[in-house]
Amino acid sequence: MPDPTTVKAALAAQAIETPSWAFGNSGTRFKVFAQPGVPRTPEEKIADAAVVHRLTGVAPSVALHVPWDAVEDYAKLNLFAQDAGVRIGAINTNVFQDDDYKLGSVTNADPRIRRKATDHLLEAVSIMDATGSRDLKLWFADGLNYPGQDDLRDRQERLSAALHETYDRLGANQRMLLEYKLFEPAFYATDVPDWGTSFAHCVELGPKAFVCIDTGHHAPGTNIEFIVAFLLRQGKLGAFDFNSRFYADDDLMAGAADPFQLFRIMYEIVRGEALEPSYGINFMLDQCHNIEAKIPAIIRSVMNIQEATAKALLVDRGALRDAQQSGDVLSANGVLMDAYNTDVRPLLRELREESGRDPDPLAAYHRSGYQAQIESDRAHGQQAGWNA
Amino acid sequence: MPDPTTVKAALAAQAIETPSWAFGNSGTRFKVFAQPGVPRTPEEKIADAAVVHRLTGVAPSVALHVPWDAVEDYAKLNLFAQDAGVRIGAINTNVFQDDDYKLGSVTNADPRIRRKATDHLLEAVSIMDATGSRDLKLWFADGLNYPGQDDLRDRQERLSAALHETYDRLGANQRMLLEYKLFEPAFYATDVPDWGTSFAHCVELGPKAFVCIDTGHHAPGTNIEFIVAFLLRQGKLGAFDFNSRFYADDDLMAGAADPFQLFRIMYEIVRGEALEPSYGINFMLDQCHNIEAKIPAIIRSVMNIQEATAKALLVDRGALRDAQQSGDVLSANGVLMDAYNTDVRPLLRELREESGRDPDPLAAYHRSGYQAQIESDRAHGQQAGWNA
Amino acid sequence: MPDPTTVKAALAAQAIETPSWAFGNSGTRFKVFAQPGVPRTPEEKIADAAVVHRLTGVAPSVALHVPWDAVEDYAKLNLFAQDAGVRIGAINTNVFQDDDYKLGSVTNADPRIRRKATDHLLEAVSIMDATGSRDLKLWFADGLNYPGQDDLRDRQERLSAALHETYDRLGANQRMLLEYKLFEPAFYATDVPDWGTSFAHCVELGPKAFVCIDTGHHAPGTNIEFIVAFLLRQGKLGAFDFNSRFYADDDLMAGAADPFQLFRIMYEIVRGEALEPSYGINFMLDQCHNIEAKIPAIIRSVMNIQEATAKALLVDRGALRDAQQSGDVLSANGVLMDAYNTDVRPLLRELREESGRDPDPLAAYHRSGYQAQIESDRAHGQQAGWNA
Amino acid sequence: MPDPTTVKAALAAQAIETPSWAFGNSGTRFKVFAQPGVPRTPEEKIADAAVVHRLTGVAPSVALHVPWDAVEDYAKLNLFAQDAGVRIGAINTNVFQDDDYKLGSVTNADPRIRRKATDHLLEAVSIMDATGSRDLKLWFADGLNYPGQDDLRDRQERLSAALHETYDRLGANQRMLLEYKLFEPAFYATDVPDWGTSFAHCVELGPKAFVCIDTGHHAPGTNIEFIVAFLLRQGKLGAFDFNSRFYADDDLMAGAADPFQLFRIMYEIVRGEALEPSYGINFMLDQCHNIEAKIPAIIRSVMNIQEATAKALLVDRGALRDAQQSGDVLSANGVLMDAYNTDVRPLLRELREESGRDPDPLAAYHRSGYQAQIESDRAHGQQAGWNA
Repeated sequence: MPDPTTVKAALAAQAIETPSWAFGNSGTRFKVFAQPGVPRTPEEKIADAAVVHRLTGVAPSVALHVPWDAVEDYAKLNLFAQDAGVRIGAINTNVFQDDDYKLGSVTNADPRIRRKATDHLLEAVSIMDATGSRDLKLWFADGLNYPGQDDLRDRQERLSAALHETYDRLGANQRMLLEYKLFEPAFYATDVPDWGTSFAHCVELGPKAFVCIDTGHHAPGTNIEFIVAFLLRQGKLGAFDFNSRFYADDDLMAGAADPFQLFRIMYEIVRGEALEPSYGINFMLDQCHNIEAKIPAIIRSVMNIQEATAKALLVDRGALRDAQQSGDVLSANGVLMDAYNTDVRPLLRELREESGRDPDPLAAYHRSGYQAQIESDRAHGQQAGWNA
Repeated sequence: MPDPTTVKAALAAQAIETPSWAFGNSGTRFKVFAQPGVPRTPEEKIADAAVVHRLTGVAPSVALHVPWDAVEDYAKLNLFAQDAGVRIGAINTNVFQDDDYKLGSVTNADPRIRRKATDHLLEAVSIMDATGSRDLKLWFADGLNYPGQDDLRDRQERLSAALHETYDRLGANQRMLLEYKLFEPAFYATDVPDWGTSFAHCVELGPKAFVCIDTGHHAPGTNIEFIVAFLLRQGKLGAFDFNSRFYADDDLMAGAADPFQLFRIMYEIVRGEALEPSYGINFMLDQCHNIEAKIPAIIRSVMNIQEATAKALLVDRGALRDAQQSGDVLSANGVLMDAYNTDVRPLLRELREESGRDPDPLAAYHRSGYQAQIESDRAHGQQAGWNA
Repeated sequence: MPDPTTVKAALAAQAIETPSWAFGNSGTRFKVFAQPGVPRTPEEKIADAAVVHRLTGVAPSVALHVPWDAVEDYAKLNLFAQDAGVRIGAINTNVFQDDDYKLGSVTNADPRIRRKATDHLLEAVSIMDATGSRDLKLWFADGLNYPGQDDLRDRQERLSAALHETYDRLGANQRMLLEYKLFEPAFYATDVPDWGTSFAHCVELGPKAFVCIDTGHHAPGTNIEFIVAFLLRQGKLGAFDFNSRFYADDDLMAGAADPFQLFRIMYEIVRGEALEPSYGINFMLDQCHNIEAKIPAIIRSVMNIQEATAKALLVDRGALRDAQQSGDVLSANGVLMDAYNTDVRPLLRELREESGRDPDPLAAYHRSGYQAQIESDRAHGQQAGWNA
Repeated sequence: MPDPTTVKAALAAQAIETPSWAFGNSGTRFKVFAQPGVPRTPEEKIADAAVVHRLTGVAPSVALHVPWDAVEDYAKLNLFAQDAGVRIGAINTNVFQDDDYKLGSVTNADPRIRRKATDHLLEAVSIMDATGSRDLKLWFADGLNYPGQDDLRDRQERLSAALHETYDRLGANQRMLLEYKLFEPAFYATDVPDWGTSFAHCVELGPKAFVCIDTGHHAPGTNIEFIVAFLLRQGKLGAFDFNSRFYADDDLMAGAADPFQLFRIMYEIVRGEALEPSYGINFMLDQCHNIEAKIPAIIRSVMNIQEATAKALLVDRGALRDAQQSGDVLSANGVLMDAYNTDVRPLLRELREESGRDPDPLAAYHRSGYQAQIESDRAHGQQAGWNA
């Protein structure tokens, strides 16, 4: 059985990155239900992220999304974050909300639009320079709604060109994370639809390019932990966008839809010795809290990932290996399930108390008065949202 | 082989209902790309629908959506439609875009919100009275994003109560169409997720309640033509919302994603002798033309349904039955495929010419100058869209 | 919080039915891997089922499959079961393994084959008379591989006729359970593909006909607990075939693929007050242990269902209702997750000890010597399997 | 518009490989329905394949499966094929039907079993040497049914080792085709589940390793023509296993379930200039004719691929490019659909007549007396089947 001290040390060192946009309003194509107290500025989003980190102790950085989080002075934003107790994490680009991008951004048939989109990617690297951010996260909404609409293969050439130009702009300590997604907003073909496509481009690009796994971006039945294990073997797993889903890219709280799957994913991370921040994987959240309170939902998501990680760390790897080697299917499965069936909440409460935190971050948040404060402070002005 | 005269007569009598909202702007949660010339008022939507009917000859009615298409005087709107050469079709209700409906409408745990939602349904029946519309179409976005969020069974009781109250308000010649949908915007459980749920409520309600099949609202792998055949047998198929999909509720043009499936659906309609308007099925479109030109896309969709119907009518039912009765799998399949593989476009061009129409409705539209006219006329004001 | 004594009492009264065929060899279309010690006769299957009951205390009955379990004297088989400490449960019919059934059984276009299939169903009722079995379980492999192969609607008429004839033969205390399945072995259309189809036929048949939910027989994304809740509301849920799946009808051990889903299903049972045997639901297993040891796998499956049930019973229903009524999404979800995250294994160990059983049924089985005994005793003769 | 002479020349040069096993009995896990006249030996399978080629003119080679098609003297079998008018195509290995392979073959935790499996692969290369076959086709049933059953990553190492050893054994003109499959017979994780995994291994192996796309081996919603286009760009598409499906790996006749998809796939082949045999793609069938007559089903499948290819060749690529470049979504889609909606059967009948064949291969087969002959000749002996 794993040593409790080791388990706790690993959990204490864990780092989960929160997404600035998840603190703002979001919704479906049918309706965005606005919530009171939602941030109006990048600074307010960072402030909210800092609260999550203060309460959980494992959310030390916050990802930005440009132009949603565009500011005049990024160095200043950086200092603001530091003062608030968090770091600026990945820079997420947005080449899907400008009218020009109706038929694609970097894969568009129109060279003018490709140029514009690529320039945005290059600008994001400049923001990385200014903020010290390590990771450039690329997600492209590019794709087709109808067969024949554009040439599938030409679009790969255009994609490759834009990726290369951007990659070449990266500094020595900067990385590119290439996300894939099966569908939405494109409904027939997506230009980076699966991990294989992202992987092939990353290999072509070089050692600073990595695949980013969004747990909600797969076809039904896809075994995500297999992809995790495979990419770890190839040295090409760079990041996660955690969230959960029952159907499509539902963007529910991580661990809410299939906690057993989240555990299996975290087990592959632990088994691959890839949990420590020094390994380099960026464990991000990417979620939409359409109907539930936003800051509590993010706290809950962080806790769900912690619990899955704790269970993964508790797997008796020696016993597991023995059962696997002997071909004892039921025992091997049993070893894994023993860890999964363990109630790790007491261990995590203990861990929080040992670091001077409230054992129950959600209760602490509700007691803190923060929610009432922001609902009052942020009553006026334009609240942040996807289309803000 | 079917008699060509009979086939043409059936095609000439076909009626497809266009949806007012498909002429307006639409999009995904990521972005609505606005198009020039999009209507600003219910009247302008009806005018566009009338163009589609003029060119195709088989789209004599247009469905409205309230409150999107709310007007002061429905009798006047009715006259406007008649003058334009179309009828007002189904009245679609909207209980999903008011802030009150964040956690549901008629299934909401809060009785005040249920009352408000049900009142909206009753008001829609009044609009039917005023417009002479036969069909009340109900689609509920109600559902849950998280397990435990609300009680699944209580919600069925609430749904049933609202449906009964509305059903009781229907006049002698009015019908209720209950649509189902697997998911979106609810991401864990939807209160009317499948045809079985809709069917069970319709049976409970009585002879004026019918199931509406939206071809994009099923789980992957669902055999839609089976549902068509089954509901015809039960006398409970009331309407279609046609569109097509590769993934989820993509709302692409009917026949664009899987023309063979559309043919199989229309074959069950033909086999069930349910194609004639007198049978009572309302063959509606329900689509979102996010990136393609709207009126041409609707014309194209109507033509796609016509082509599928023509092929279905061409099936040699005598030969099919013989092959089926003798257990000759390949021959039976072959008879169906022979009809599907036939190019029916010449036949449909002929049909249009015989009724004094242009054989190519899309070319006729592009030549007509209508698009330039509306782009100029509708340059100002608020264009219609889902969130208008 | 639920009272521990009540929880334990409910768990002690629980009854799970094991399937005789799961003790025999099974496999995929690619290969059946035979296991040593597998039973050769119905009696040996019953003996194995009795061991499972002896060790778990909650598996008091065993379902039979005819003709796989056909014997000369069913009254004698009944006595054999009683002596072994178990009851004979549902009688499962088999109208899919005779050469005549290549194109269907009760829905076959050939009346001779329909007659033969229906006669088999009637014979199964006679076996119920002889064994005192309450439940006739019907699963039809009937369906089509190719569009056009047969007439979808005619097949429903034929199905209905066979069901009515069989229903009319049922005694006063006998029930019919109609199972549905999306696909396999039919690959285009299945004649009873979903719960809606089964439900509609059961309603048409009358009060002794009930739907049977096999947890592996749904399209991807189907919310099974919704179906449970809905059928309970309609009074038409008669039975479960428990197993688990990642992809199709994988027939893995219950609770192995998605333990959270199994918990949600059992929660709807508890919430519907339908757990007690007196309510009438037959909680059966229907699994294939292709690569894992069979008796241990069945023990494990029974334990998995027990654990899911224990968690469902631990849900604080008062707190849940309060959170649901107040529209507090996160708290309501939290109440459910609190129960799910509880480690119920100590409680179940306690329960077993209190009834004089070993707290660890799997360890007890391995210590018992039973496996070595059957491997020796059953070394010769024809071992039972699907194609035996 | 494409020149008819060019189109016909391309169609005349097309080559589709038939699979020896599809002439034998097959079924589902529930039942194998035997058919009269099914071959009993590799020679009889080759004879049947030769009939398909004689009638269609585009099926010049037949794939073998060892050990199903193992013979003493492969050189002699080769001559037999030549005399019959066909070539021996890909050699398919079988490391899934020996009892040793219950928990995997080349990825098994047991080194003895890995050795045995790899030796079989090496032996297959020897058969290639003897028959002059160019392609070694590898499909591994290897995978897990339960989480924890074995280590996902270790299995990749073992797979890689076996692939390397086999690859190193290939002669200068021999190739390795690595097939992937989402699931079945493994129900939790498959060791080569998707094109990305196959691709990564092929890149690692070198220029003689290629991906094989089985059209039935994907998750629901996967865009297969995208994979075709992507692999062509990477120079790593080596072969197809054609068949069709509505649900899982249904192995129905190619083009039977979604003829539009088959057309889109063939369009990417045509667009990538990869149709000609000299390009190197092996267009194989891999199907199971469980309920339909086998030779006619294979003829029909070949014809379906021909029809899809003819339509793909008829796409007006100049017009398509113009519409794509101008961002005209509907016109671009329209150009593709115009080709798809064309009835190409007259063209193909013409082509057959020009090469001295019957325009209707199925009718010609039925008239030929071959079926009666084989039913009589092969009445005795052990008929070929998957478990033969």
